[in-house]
Amino acid sequence: MPFQARGTGRRKDAADGRLLLSRDSNYPWLLLVPRRPSAREIIDLGTAEQVQLMTEIDMVSRALKAVTACHKLNVAAIGNVVPQLHIHIVARQLDDPAWPKPVWGTVPARAYDLAERERFIAALRRKIGLP
Amino acid sequence: MPFQARGTGRRKDAADGRLLLSRDSNYPWLLLVPRRPSAREIIDLGTAEQVQLMTEIDMVSRALKAVTACHKLNVAAIGNVVPQLHIHIVARQLDDPAWPKPVWGTVPARAYDLAERERFIAALRRKIGLP
Repeated sequence: MPFQARGTGRRKDAADGRLLLSRDSNYPWLLLVPRRPSAREIIDLGTAEQVQLMTEIDMVSRALKAVTACHKLNVAAIGNVVPQLHIHIVARQLDDPAWPKPVWGTVPARAYDLAERERFIAALRRKIGLP
Repeated sequence: MPFQARGTGRRKDAADGRLLLSRDSNYPWLLLVPRRPSAREIIDLGTAEQVQLMTEIDMVSRALKAVTACHKLNVAAIGNVVPQLHIHIVARQLDDPAWPKPVWGTVPARAYDLAERERFIAALRRKIGLP
């Protein structure tokens, strides 16, 4: 699974599964995009793809929790605006700007400091075992 | 998987997996509760339990989509307020009160008309194949 530093899950032409980092630095917020551009829903995936997706959710969630020491993970397939199936995996803290509300639309997005973003991506790559 | 008409996922003592109907009638909104009361996160489940959860998400999502002819499914494990692991499975329509926003906290909950609720539960039971 390639890990892209940029992007928000809004590209629709990918042939491979991807892990994207949200541009909103309010929360460590990843987007897991299965390798089926035609899928809008989890039920559009075949059984093996669903199991693969669950395996990737587990792997990414564990890495995100380890890197952030978060209080709670939020895992969600919403897709009301961006149609291609993507899974939000968000690390929540008791003192984050939206807690205990969900992250969508609660507070304005905040851009990453470039160095902060690179440190986070590097830590996550190491934890997941990506090159 | 027993299907309870009442409740909002707030009971914490269940030994069996359950499917609950939200009290908010703004959207057909189900809560799938795995049979592990100690689990707070998907990553607290073992591999077989995760696969079982994905199978149940698929089954319930298909039934909900068939009964509601919804435009989009929203599937989410949030759990910031209610700690026991539960999966929201919500049928969204282009003209529902919150579209395209997520359902949490967007508009006030609206109580079910009793007959409407019973009709919905009966249709869903038939579709899932529950007695």
